[in-house]
Amino acid sequence: MSYLLQDLATLVGGTLKGNGRIEITGVRPITEAGPGHLTFVEDVKHARLLPQCQAAAAVVGPDMDAGELPVICVAKPLAAFTRIAEHILGVKPPAVTGVHSQSSVAKSAKIGVEPSIGPFAVVGHDAIVGSRCRLMSGAVIGDGCRLGDDVVIHPNVVLYPNTVVGNRVIIHAGAVIGADGFGYRTEGGRHVKVPQLGHVEIGDDVEIGAGATIDRGTFHITRIGEGTKIDNLAQIAHNVQVGRHNLIVSQVGIAGSSKTGDYVIIAGQVGVKDHVTIGDRAIVGGMAGVMRDIPAGEHWVGIPATPEREQFRMQVNLHKIPELREQLHALAKRVEELEGSAAVKRKSA
Amino acid sequence: MSYLLQDLATLVGGTLKGNGRIEITGVRPITEAGPGHLTFVEDVKHARLLPQCQAAAAVVGPDMDAGELPVICVAKPLAAFTRIAEHILGVKPPAVTGVHSQSSVAKSAKIGVEPSIGPFAVVGHDAIVGSRCRLMSGAVIGDGCRLGDDVVIHPNVVLYPNTVVGNRVIIHAGAVIGADGFGYRTEGGRHVKVPQLGHVEIGDDVEIGAGATIDRGTFHITRIGEGTKIDNLAQIAHNVQVGRHNLIVSQVGIAGSSKTGDYVIIAGQVGVKDHVTIGDRAIVGGMAGVMRDIPAGEHWVGIPATPEREQFRMQVNLHKIPELREQLHALAKRVEELEGSAAVKRKSA
Amino acid sequence: MSYLLQDLATLVGGTLKGNGRIEITGVRPITEAGPGHLTFVEDVKHARLLPQCQAAAAVVGPDMDAGELPVICVAKPLAAFTRIAEHILGVKPPAVTGVHSQSSVAKSAKIGVEPSIGPFAVVGHDAIVGSRCRLMSGAVIGDGCRLGDDVVIHPNVVLYPNTVVGNRVIIHAGAVIGADGFGYRTEGGRHVKVPQLGHVEIGDDVEIGAGATIDRGTFHITRIGEGTKIDNLAQIAHNVQVGRHNLIVSQVGIAGSSKTGDYVIIAGQVGVKDHVTIGDRAIVGGMAGVMRDIPAGEHWVGIPATPEREQFRMQVNLHKIPELREQLHALAKRVEELEGSAAVKRKSA
Repeated sequence: MSYLLQDLATLVGGTLKGNGRIEITGVRPITEAGPGHLTFVEDVKHARLLPQCQAAAAVVGPDMDAGELPVICVAKPLAAFTRIAEHILGVKPPAVTGVHSQSSVAKSAKIGVEPSIGPFAVVGHDAIVGSRCRLMSGAVIGDGCRLGDDVVIHPNVVLYPNTVVGNRVIIHAGAVIGADGFGYRTEGGRHVKVPQLGHVEIGDDVEIGAGATIDRGTFHITRIGEGTKIDNLAQIAHNVQVGRHNLIVSQVGIAGSSKTGDYVIIAGQVGVKDHVTIGDRAIVGGMAGVMRDIPAGEHWVGIPATPEREQFRMQVNLHKIPELREQLHALAKRVEELEGSAAVKRKSA
Repeated sequence: MSYLLQDLATLVGGTLKGNGRIEITGVRPITEAGPGHLTFVEDVKHARLLPQCQAAAAVVGPDMDAGELPVICVAKPLAAFTRIAEHILGVKPPAVTGVHSQSSVAKSAKIGVEPSIGPFAVVGHDAIVGSRCRLMSGAVIGDGCRLGDDVVIHPNVVLYPNTVVGNRVIIHAGAVIGADGFGYRTEGGRHVKVPQLGHVEIGDDVEIGAGATIDRGTFHITRIGEGTKIDNLAQIAHNVQVGRHNLIVSQVGIAGSSKTGDYVIIAGQVGVKDHVTIGDRAIVGGMAGVMRDIPAGEHWVGIPATPEREQFRMQVNLHKIPELREQLHALAKRVEELEGSAAVKRKSA
Repeated sequence: MSYLLQDLATLVGGTLKGNGRIEITGVRPITEAGPGHLTFVEDVKHARLLPQCQAAAAVVGPDMDAGELPVICVAKPLAAFTRIAEHILGVKPPAVTGVHSQSSVAKSAKIGVEPSIGPFAVVGHDAIVGSRCRLMSGAVIGDGCRLGDDVVIHPNVVLYPNTVVGNRVIIHAGAVIGADGFGYRTEGGRHVKVPQLGHVEIGDDVEIGAGATIDRGTFHITRIGEGTKIDNLAQIAHNVQVGRHNLIVSQVGIAGSSKTGDYVIIAGQVGVKDHVTIGDRAIVGGMAGVMRDIPAGEHWVGIPATPEREQFRMQVNLHKIPELREQLHALAKRVEELEGSAAVKRKSA
């Protein structure tokens, strides 16, 4: 199946430049686009790849030069390209499927309008599920959970009892929200469990990746702020307070009672110690180990994490060691010569 | 709902100091406590936070000075506070629910008294489940597994066939026990699977975190010793022998055939190489990379991990480089001057 | 139950040396073997452990010296030992169980011959499942997925819609294939989701570990090449292209759009940045942080990763700092002396 470029331009209300009669058979990012493909370019950096790209056409920003290539000009290339991709790939809004006969919904649970509850999904006692929620196969919504509207819970997700989930939250398959935190007191040579009595609260528009784990608060609440996005296999420990609009990349671990401000970015595999505070808009580089507070707006990297410039300096220093050794060696020679001539003088004196 | 402080003191058999008629509306850790809240202090370090804390009252240890704040004095503040928290939060022992009609229990399986088996839980052929076990929704107990008494298996946990689980073990949602280890032999350019024929044995009183994975032994047993606690998303490879009463924090990875002694602590995101032994009561710092054996009782950190003092010395050395460079530069100047005056002398001589 | 060594030799067509009438009661790796056990030795390195080993007998390679120990000589010791272990442990090919009455298979799905579909497994609309596939309890095969023949999907695995899986693929419990990648564009202070419209394609003979996550492509395909093995809790981001016959060890994270060649080995807990290429047969050491392209055949380690020899040199340099300080100190003394004698001379002049 193929689509005329001019029709796709019309679909997104873009300005066509070049031959609108060419046929588009698929969509690809610029590094993978071949003949017949439509691609897109959002910034000048990627625009440089256009000349060697074999795409048939591109969606570009205003005033972006694409040479001979037919283009659709729009204000927001990625958004327009995505809409075209959904059109070509035949993406449809998911159907409302009702409550599957093979699910298990407690009588005391309250379910909003237009639910889609899959086979083998479980909704516990006294749980409240908002309107238009999609609880997929094998998802477990514990007793007393409260979900907002338009929530999507992918297959085999587990929400422990009393988890609170905002509107439009998406939780991917296999994530576990509200398990007991890792808390013990040691008595007579045994680790005795400290009961974990709190719960997890997830703000509006949060998305949580596959296999991620977020533990309940010990006595109170573990919080994920509105608009924050958490990637696969991240671990958020008990009592952590994550701010709003954070980006927490995959395999990050944040230890107990730590806090992040708003718009914090934590790159992949970072570890954050317990009881640490990361300020607003701070950025933590991949694989860093955060051992102390990070002030707002700073960019920290390394293990232990320090401001990027310090880490850079340290790397430079480390690479200067061979030079230092050479200089020291050369200097020693000069001193030797001086000592030699001094000795000669002493002798001659 | 609120509670009189004096009644809470009675509940835990504590000694009341100050006004017992004040009303407690909630429980919080000291860093989050506000008006109306009861908090607790276990040690002198946290006692220092009491003056600026807004809590209405605190549970404290014997002879701990809390100034004007009304307190309940007990021998073990955390234990007493937890009991009060359970009382205030209305935590009840979980009900015995029997075997759910939507579960799948093999006829050849043996189930002990007072079972609670949730919807969509599976118990395989010839599995033996002890008394008072709770197998929650979607939990899968493979063929031939043997579980002790009072075991709690949270939703969507998977126990592969023949897994052995001790008494009072808790396994959190999504954990996978007994999957095949990562073992291949390469023949003619292909990685050929080495069949993984062993199983996993978990001792009494072990707790395993959400999403953690513990692989079966290749030919024999992967063991988790009695009383050991393993946090979320930790990975224990095939043939590993974990000792008793270990604390293994989240996202730790222990490679094949490694061993730990008793009372070992391994902090978050540590990686342990294969075939390594970590001695009794050793402590491994967060994010360390353990490449060789750690003697009993030592505290190792860093990548590659070394005794803490060595790592500290190395950090100090690294920070001394700029100073070294300056000293070298200054010394070079002095040598230059000496050379200059020597040259002058030679000339004048 | 016990087995005569001579019968086990016959089972694998091996050459018996020593007393064939001894009785074997179990199989163990050489480090765990005790009286009555059969063990195996594949290389000279492990052969050295034979003298202190208490095993009753061993399976060894041709011309391998085992002293007095009775042995079965074969060309491939591990393969022969595995076959004996399966015999002794009574491992049987899994029975074909058909489609369980408590599963949920869409009418539009096509299922090949001899299926084994467990309780609470789900097969979505228009999914195609090949012959002799085993879909275990709670596994979720999304709408439009296509599975080859002889595929094994362990309990509670989730395949998102349109995932393509080759022949003889094994996916372990709790793995999630095809979840949305971590892609957002920021508009007006909010992270707006970039729809993830692609899917995942997994080649023949791939094995994927428990709890691993592989995200779908943004617009196109995330690929795992034929014969590649991925360990537990690894994370493969959207658009990644993994080559053939890779070994990717547990807890590795590969960020978006990165590529690996064939026969690449990535050890445990490695992090790979986005848009990086790792060449054929490259090896990345445990816990390394790959920040840039790695040429074919090289062995890189460290954070940031560099060729092994560079890392080694850097470690050596780091350890030379104390020596440098001492040398500098000694040289400073010599300069001081020279200055002293120069001053004396000046005075005496």
